[in-house]
Amino acid sequence: MIYDTAIIGTGPAGLSAAINLKLHNKEILWFGSKDFSVKVAKSEKIANYPGMGLISGADLNAKFEEHRKAMDLAITDQMVTSISVMKKKFMLSAGSDVYTAKTILLTTGTATGKGFEGEDTYLGSGVSYCATCDGFLYKGKTIAVYCQDVRFEHEVDYLAEITDKVYLSAPYKGGKYGKDGSAWAAAEEPASSGEPVSAAAGKIERLSSAIKKVSGTMKLSSIELADGTVIETEALFCLRNAIAPTTLLKKIELDGPHVVVGRDMATNIPGCFAAGDCTGRPYQIAKCVGEGNIAAHSIIEYLAAME
Amino acid sequence: MIYDTAIIGTGPAGLSAAINLKLHNKEILWFGSKDFSVKVAKSEKIANYPGMGLISGADLNAKFEEHRKAMDLAITDQMVTSISVMKKKFMLSAGSDVYTAKTILLTTGTATGKGFEGEDTYLGSGVSYCATCDGFLYKGKTIAVYCQDVRFEHEVDYLAEITDKVYLSAPYKGGKYGKDGSAWAAAEEPASSGEPVSAAAGKIERLSSAIKKVSGTMKLSSIELADGTVIETEALFCLRNAIAPTTLLKKIELDGPHVVVGRDMATNIPGCFAAGDCTGRPYQIAKCVGEGNIAAHSIIEYLAAME
Repeated sequence: MIYDTAIIGTGPAGLSAAINLKLHNKEILWFGSKDFSVKVAKSEKIANYPGMGLISGADLNAKFEEHRKAMDLAITDQMVTSISVMKKKFMLSAGSDVYTAKTILLTTGTATGKGFEGEDTYLGSGVSYCATCDGFLYKGKTIAVYCQDVRFEHEVDYLAEITDKVYLSAPYKGGKYGKDGSAWAAAEEPASSGEPVSAAAGKIERLSSAIKKVSGTMKLSSIELADGTVIETEALFCLRNAIAPTTLLKKIELDGPHVVVGRDMATNIPGCFAAGDCTGRPYQIAKCVGEGNIAAHSIIEYLAAME
Repeated sequence: MIYDTAIIGTGPAGLSAAINLKLHNKEILWFGSKDFSVKVAKSEKIANYPGMGLISGADLNAKFEEHRKAMDLAITDQMVTSISVMKKKFMLSAGSDVYTAKTILLTTGTATGKGFEGEDTYLGSGVSYCATCDGFLYKGKTIAVYCQDVRFEHEVDYLAEITDKVYLSAPYKGGKYGKDGSAWAAAEEPASSGEPVSAAAGKIERLSSAIKKVSGTMKLSSIELADGTVIETEALFCLRNAIAPTTLLKKIELDGPHVVVGRDMATNIPGCFAAGDCTGRPYQIAKCVGEGNIAAHSIIEYLAAME
């Protein structure tokens, strides 16, 4: 089936757009984390979302979840890794699935710029954003993984299961593999009665320093860390909350790290719209819901004109 | 004192801006109705303000009021009737008071275009937007009043007290003077034990049809109704929820009825910003709070650059 719109991102902008598109009976695909925005979740107190008074980010996300449920909106918790622009439609790859939609709405948040040095160069030649899609290519081999968030730890486990060795950079707190994660605590205290370390976890080595650069010739062959260490590896899996818009759509127009949009939230690619933090400052929840609303209405007009 | 910003309008855009400016310790003046947006209040069910689920407009306004109180934001319930653009500041007239502010934020909602035919021509020569400012000019005379909302009925009473006769157009329901207002019911049933009709109310005559046109030579001398009736009058007081942006600021750039703004909500007049329904479609609460947020941040930057 061809969906009317694929929304990429489950932050406030994505939710606002999803609600409005659903109210207008559009068939939507909504990609992202079922836990909504990590950035919202981490906000201790939010004072400027009108009508909510002083609220924690966790509580606001809970209200967003209630609203999602009330609207019967489904979230597809897959990472979209590429989008092809076709005639009057878009093809989206997510995991091993391919979807088709008439329009696209990017609500991808503040992506971390261009990623690591050399990352773009080796995308598809050693750099991957998708464990499910590309993991099998490295069966029994040595790989590196950049895991940005605790929600991707199961993908780290999957990669460790099928490969021989995983060098891991996981710069968050908590979880199993974060800075003070339970896997490391268990490893340091073998006598502990804690959770047993799995065979997969045993193959994982923590990187001493942050990943800085990706190198190779035709294919990726090593990564360099901030402290100068060079690690030989055949692949680098980057598991991030947000993918830079240019990674998804090579021809999208940016101004610095931000997607260029008009007042109607249209980008330079016909049928592709953007809303929320990815379109620029101020990085504010109210701004995101406002832009998501505008984008949804522009998409409804665009779809009507297509018919 | 010179205020940092004067916000005109207490709808969702005005509230969103006021919250953010207050959080940044700006000295603000916030003009409008203490009851917030009539348009929101009249919405039976709102389904697309993210996080609120399905909520009535009245309940959403109540939440806005709670937020306003929690932020200790004061509303000045005066109608701003004109704004003069000075060097690096603005002078605002409201009632018989004059205020000065470094920046202006228009959140005036969907103003009813250009008003009545001829209204602009006779503004200041018989047409007035302010009972308190101009009422005394018509002591003992015959005037006409267009009362858009129940909240202006006390101004109608004031005008009836000081003038000799008031022709009234009040195209809303309820209140004292609305279509099925209590004043008319009392007049039709003199034996009723209801509220006694005041001397002022006795001078008021309901217009048989809507006001269409304002006529005169040097000064206004009559109004014409939709049914063709011509009424001789020395003045027409227009008591409206929103004043057209061009009435407030003659040089502001419009596109149709909407204020032209950039992505930063700046208008063509330096220091003057606009947000919400007055900047165009979609007429949506989420869009209004988003634009109010953006405008506040643009104003904060503008003020910083002034110093």
